[in-house]
Amino acid sequence: MVIVQVYVMVKENNLDEFIVASTVNAKNSINEPGVIRFDFMQQKDDPRSFLLTEIYVDDKAQLAHKETPHYLKWRETVADMMLGPRNGVKYSGIYPLDEKYWKSKK
Amino acid sequence: MVIVQVYVMVKENNLDEFIVASTVNAKNSINEPGVIRFDFMQQKDDPRSFLLTEIYVDDKAQLAHKETPHYLKWRETVADMMLGPRNGVKYSGIYPLDEKYWKSKK
Repeated sequence: MVIVQVYVMVKENNLDEFIVASTVNAKNSINEPGVIRFDFMQQKDDPRSFLLTEIYVDDKAQLAHKETPHYLKWRETVADMMLGPRNGVKYSGIYPLDEKYWKSKK
Repeated sequence: MVIVQVYVMVKENNLDEFIVASTVNAKNSINEPGVIRFDFMQQKDDPRSFLLTEIYVDDKAQLAHKETPHYLKWRETVADMMLGPRNGVKYSGIYPLDEKYWKSKK
């Protein structure tokens, strides 16, 4: 299992468009066979700051995600909306102990 | 729903103890009525860096968590293991759209 926390800062004028594009991407991503969870959230005290929690079964599944049409479209759509490069940080899950509990119910 | 990402930096000599204490705390926390999810993870390229993803039904449930015996015990146990103060960042969930999909299966 691979957990990636992806931090994105977005230009104030592009918040709505970014939310729409990223929601479409998340909806498609959660249906990939190697995706365990794909959460999308916005920081309460700074609406320009977003976090994507992407959980994959393995590294191969993460690479496969980056080749999907919905990811490639999202990447292109949001490129000019961002204040800077995205920052992805990888984590290992400790608790829940069992991988099945990390899975989104959907 | 309230999402809190809690970042903790831990002293290298205390990693194992911190993991044990935090796993016990997570196991108890997930059973609180107001807790939707309580994930605990460790950064891959810096094992001193931990992330707790705490999701509550509302602000009241977050306050209630801070009064539980297991939280108070954890706070005391880990106090001297940390390299600095914890940093909690609050988020609003955007996707999944429905709160039920944020819930841990457990």
